[in-house]
Amino acid sequence: MKLCRYGPVGAEKLGLVDADGVSRDVSGIVDDITPATLDVIERLRATDLASLREVEGEPRFGVPVAGIGKFIAVGLNYADHAAEANLPVPPEPIFFTKAISCLVGANDDVMIPKGALKTDWEVELGVIIGKTCRYVEQADALDHVAGYVLVNDVSERAFQKELGSQWDKGKGCDTFGPTGPWLVTPDEIGDPQALEMFLDVNGQRMQIGNTKTMIFPVVECIAYVSRFITLLPGDLLITGTPPGVGEGQKPNPVFLKAGDTMRLGIDKLGEQRQRVVAFDLSASRA
Amino acid sequence: MKLCRYGPVGAEKLGLVDADGVSRDVSGIVDDITPATLDVIERLRATDLASLREVEGEPRFGVPVAGIGKFIAVGLNYADHAAEANLPVPPEPIFFTKAISCLVGANDDVMIPKGALKTDWEVELGVIIGKTCRYVEQADALDHVAGYVLVNDVSERAFQKELGSQWDKGKGCDTFGPTGPWLVTPDEIGDPQALEMFLDVNGQRMQIGNTKTMIFPVVECIAYVSRFITLLPGDLLITGTPPGVGEGQKPNPVFLKAGDTMRLGIDKLGEQRQRVVAFDLSASRA
Repeated sequence: MKLCRYGPVGAEKLGLVDADGVSRDVSGIVDDITPATLDVIERLRATDLASLREVEGEPRFGVPVAGIGKFIAVGLNYADHAAEANLPVPPEPIFFTKAISCLVGANDDVMIPKGALKTDWEVELGVIIGKTCRYVEQADALDHVAGYVLVNDVSERAFQKELGSQWDKGKGCDTFGPTGPWLVTPDEIGDPQALEMFLDVNGQRMQIGNTKTMIFPVVECIAYVSRFITLLPGDLLITGTPPGVGEGQKPNPVFLKAGDTMRLGIDKLGEQRQRVVAFDLSASRA
Repeated sequence: MKLCRYGPVGAEKLGLVDADGVSRDVSGIVDDITPATLDVIERLRATDLASLREVEGEPRFGVPVAGIGKFIAVGLNYADHAAEANLPVPPEPIFFTKAISCLVGANDDVMIPKGALKTDWEVELGVIIGKTCRYVEQADALDHVAGYVLVNDVSERAFQKELGSQWDKGKGCDTFGPTGPWLVTPDEIGDPQALEMFLDVNGQRMQIGNTKTMIFPVVECIAYVSRFITLLPGDLLITGTPPGVGEGQKPNPVFLKAGDTMRLGIDKLGEQRQRVVAFDLSASRA
């Protein structure tokens, strides 16, 4: 099952996406998907999609879960990406935090922050937590997943790496967390370690990968983080990016500039398209 | 004005604290203080405290704002503390994130996490953001403050520093964020850079300091963070700890163990007392 939240910022309605990719309005059945109401997903399974009104036109997609509490990111989780970042493969997962105020819809604009020099892209598999994860065993980890999402872990490398040791500084700028278009339930995904992924900038393929080359698979990411931080329903955990980010380009790094376009996707999770726009304080929103 | 949220976990009621330190119930006037309802603070100013019911006994104090969205921490913000941590004074503020699931009431137990070796204390001045901070100027920063809180930035040094480069791993364990007892409005605090602070462990004074020795004062912390991450009403920003943490003790570091007690305070912000308890999965809560 694929769920979406469609419509203008702050006024999204809940939709279900049918086998043809058409969104159908379910706001008459369920008001919204939030951390407190994730269990409605199961209730929606019984819905007769054909009986529901089709969403007209091409609506904006909001973040597919409202009120995400925490946004935690595993870093350097693909060996080839660690190599291009000139960082050693970590002996155990490394993670950091993206500010929840950076979350935006799948196709919303990505804004270059004021003073930014090295704004970069990262296609990532995201996990929406469905049940509290506290010292979860790897064997049980997938039982705690409500669904999967596509995320662009937009990153400003100068902020991340050149202004001190803590990466959070370059990871949580406004618009740095496009998420969606859909929340896809685990039954549709099957093995989360067998998903092709890509990211294009201005039509040129930059990242290509497959979740099978993760150093620490999804179950290990969940289990590991849950030893340090309790993951709650509605939290978002992203799991690292494959090679091909801007800072890894040869012979010289390539970074985003206003006017660029990104397109990214992961098998079964849909695609995102973002315009990159210049800094504009009046256009900022959280 | 001092506000508190008193009562059992998850069922806190709103209180105002009078000049004698007695909490008085205002739940009949305002349901709760959340990021969306911070503006009720001004409305409460007109309240005749003497007309309100005294809260009986010695209630538990919850986190004084419900639904805090982000919990961001400036590190190494006192020169003497940077020295005891064997880290250079940063040329600009360094910050990291504490998971909001670590927030607990002022006097709730602090639990040693499973596998922890070096659990430590940090008394800190906390700021509750009152208005959206996005590229805020230092001169305007205090206009964006709803109030101040006392925070114990409990930290597991082995998790923070010995399992990779990112500190978030040792900062967000359950119970690592005692906050309160009160939210104190800025008019009662006056200059936030002139507040004495202390922390005792088992009755022995370990930390003593004054916010006047911050490297980056509160206004600079707010302005700086707001260049990278948008701070929203209800976000909590903590501003670093003075010398005397466990890892800085001579001749050998000292860390917390089950059975220890902490007592800490900051001028005008009240005091906290926590028991340190052993890891107990069944007692965990977020």
